[in-house]
Amino acid sequence: MAEPLVGNLLVAQSGGPTAVINASVAGVINEAGRHECIEEIYGGLNGVYGILHENLIDINEESNKSVQALKHTPAAALGTCRYKINFKKDPEQAEKDMNRLFEVIEAHNIRYFFYAGGNDSQDTTNKVHQEAAKRGYDIRAIGVPKTIDNDLPHTDHTPGYGSVIKYNATTVMEVGADVSSMATDDGSCCIIEVMGRAAGWIAAGTMLAKEQPNDPPHIILLPEIAFDEAKFLARVKEVVDTCGCCVVVVGEGLKDAEGNEIGADKSKLDAFGHPVLAGAADRLAEIVEPALNLKTRTVKLGYAQRAAAHYASQTDVDEAFTCGTAAVQAAVQGQSGYMVKLVRESDEPYRWTTGLQPLDDIANLEHFIPRDWISEDGWLPNEKFETYARPLIQGELHLPTKGGLPAFARLKKIAVEKKLPAREA
Amino acid sequence: MAEPLVGNLLVAQSGGPTAVINASVAGVINEAGRHECIEEIYGGLNGVYGILHENLIDINEESNKSVQALKHTPAAALGTCRYKINFKKDPEQAEKDMNRLFEVIEAHNIRYFFYAGGNDSQDTTNKVHQEAAKRGYDIRAIGVPKTIDNDLPHTDHTPGYGSVIKYNATTVMEVGADVSSMATDDGSCCIIEVMGRAAGWIAAGTMLAKEQPNDPPHIILLPEIAFDEAKFLARVKEVVDTCGCCVVVVGEGLKDAEGNEIGADKSKLDAFGHPVLAGAADRLAEIVEPALNLKTRTVKLGYAQRAAAHYASQTDVDEAFTCGTAAVQAAVQGQSGYMVKLVRESDEPYRWTTGLQPLDDIANLEHFIPRDWISEDGWLPNEKFETYARPLIQGELHLPTKGGLPAFARLKKIAVEKKLPAREA
Repeated sequence: MAEPLVGNLLVAQSGGPTAVINASVAGVINEAGRHECIEEIYGGLNGVYGILHENLIDINEESNKSVQALKHTPAAALGTCRYKINFKKDPEQAEKDMNRLFEVIEAHNIRYFFYAGGNDSQDTTNKVHQEAAKRGYDIRAIGVPKTIDNDLPHTDHTPGYGSVIKYNATTVMEVGADVSSMATDDGSCCIIEVMGRAAGWIAAGTMLAKEQPNDPPHIILLPEIAFDEAKFLARVKEVVDTCGCCVVVVGEGLKDAEGNEIGADKSKLDAFGHPVLAGAADRLAEIVEPALNLKTRTVKLGYAQRAAAHYASQTDVDEAFTCGTAAVQAAVQGQSGYMVKLVRESDEPYRWTTGLQPLDDIANLEHFIPRDWISEDGWLPNEKFETYARPLIQGELHLPTKGGLPAFARLKKIAVEKKLPAREA
Repeated sequence: MAEPLVGNLLVAQSGGPTAVINASVAGVINEAGRHECIEEIYGGLNGVYGILHENLIDINEESNKSVQALKHTPAAALGTCRYKINFKKDPEQAEKDMNRLFEVIEAHNIRYFFYAGGNDSQDTTNKVHQEAAKRGYDIRAIGVPKTIDNDLPHTDHTPGYGSVIKYNATTVMEVGADVSSMATDDGSCCIIEVMGRAAGWIAAGTMLAKEQPNDPPHIILLPEIAFDEAKFLARVKEVVDTCGCCVVVVGEGLKDAEGNEIGADKSKLDAFGHPVLAGAADRLAEIVEPALNLKTRTVKLGYAQRAAAHYASQTDVDEAFTCGTAAVQAAVQGQSGYMVKLVRESDEPYRWTTGLQPLDDIANLEHFIPRDWISEDGWLPNEKFETYARPLIQGELHLPTKGGLPAFARLKKIAVEKKLPAREA
């Protein structure tokens, strides 16, 4: 075992939030409290962007109750950012940023750095790890996985994914019941748009709503399968003739055979001359309604799906929390330059553990639904997908409430005193 | 007390479903089981439309477990319709329908008729009551209130309303946390569209998400207040400058001073030459994004909000169930031609009971948010509204689950043998 490295801890969040990214932070905080070598626990506000501005908060000032409540609080409690230290795009700015980042890290004696996020965030964590080695500064940098998109490689799945598909599948069941109960002789169609620009993991997850063959969702349009308008219309008609209505789920990133996004309406430009993103569901409704003379309605869940902590998966919360604790354990044991990953040990009963993957293996790899997890005709994921996804949505929360609504954490965010001059942009 | 009227019971549902309209049916069924004078319990499939086709099911064939599960099952378990027996629009068809309806009623010895629905459904119930009197046919017809829109007169509120605002307010909290946590120096805007074409009750209910003055939602656009684009843009800018982001809730029926719906895009016609309903949120985003150079995203909950049984209000479920039991009790006691209404006895502690309102008083009256329940500047409902709405969202469900998702009722729907020739349209 390595010599204990004594110093302070910095945890931050990055990228689009999820229902459980705060649970990972709670895991980090909780585990940090168990190790004497970790002195102060700081949070970086708005990810690396805020750290560059030396915007740190003292997490030890937060009540234990608030830290516990983080497990059930959606969005990024520390704030998030899309800022990236990008050596390819702007090497000069990136070098400036990296220097500034290490000024902040050294000024606050940060020896443990944890960054929860997706692809870009893992890349940032890796840069911190590498730069520290170059500088001979002893730090342990570990990435904590996060993304509703489930598109990180090497991990069985990502924290955040189980909750988004639990909520979305529930919504599809409920909307499906609604639409079915209104089905008149004329039939009807409802198109539900969910997130997922590159991969169809989120859309695919709604197949869990299906108990019997004719249950909604009847069609799931995945970005992995090129959209064919004629085939789609024929399939909708077929479903309506059989079931009286057709519930379609579409991933926002649906593309045709030429790779054009269906939701981008090129005939309509905004004030900047960019095509208006009408949204895939609205665009499909414009196709279905006149072609089949079918009443068609749309639902666009947008941010609601990734923030739906009120119906998060307890399994997902547990896994997210454990990814945070595993990150701290690995760092205390002397590891750096890794991402925590989830490792599946068995499907049924579902058993999992965590592992470590070198951050070098992560960058800019995306992972897609295997073709043989999708039915031959391409309209729905199959039982292989279900075996994979079903365990991830298990477990109901016991969510504290206030005034009839979920009681989410409110951090006090006591600022750590700044030690450096303001950042020059 | 009137002589007990012995015969069969028919219950049906009509109009847009809610999260708790099945709880009202469960209340009817449960109470009916307590009265010897009620022999068979039939459900009419797809409301009056199905009854005209003699599509009845035998509810006594359903398991008690299924009937209990109805309390937590969204949508209309018996099916619903928008069909109306309309003497004004088509008196000939209406007379034909009414004759057919009574053929069905008499063929099946229906003596108790309960119809759960909104304005139109109460009108239908009233017609059944009046026609029976004219014919000297002894029947007890009672309306059960339902509508997420909360636009029925005389009742304090409608079953279905508490659940839709609980879910929507939770969604606004969650999306608000998400948007706030991503707030960069440039600010951002998120526009959430909710139902409510004529009245703003549903949109107004999301104010319950607000705990502190700067919490989302920052602006609620109500159909009751004429939309003024310039003032709106100024207000969004003001909020972004203060809070870093602006979360707007808009009722789908938002109108300008001339009464034009904001969501109707007249520049774009569908295949039938009708203006495409782009949706109020998308239309507002088209206004905000270029005018304020502000990243703007939209959420359109659509049917998801009225079907969200997984986060229904227990108070609402209880009230809906009790409206069903009260309808049966009134009928057994000899009443007919009434709608059950909810009567508020006190705000805090919240106490309520049911009453009866003559159906003659209901038809085609709508009820709007009083102007003095809205802030002077028109951007948000005030504390009078909160006092009214807060009790309606109280209480968490204990929802049974299956495979990680809500376990909803599945009725067997055993058909009652038909006794009449098929309906002539």
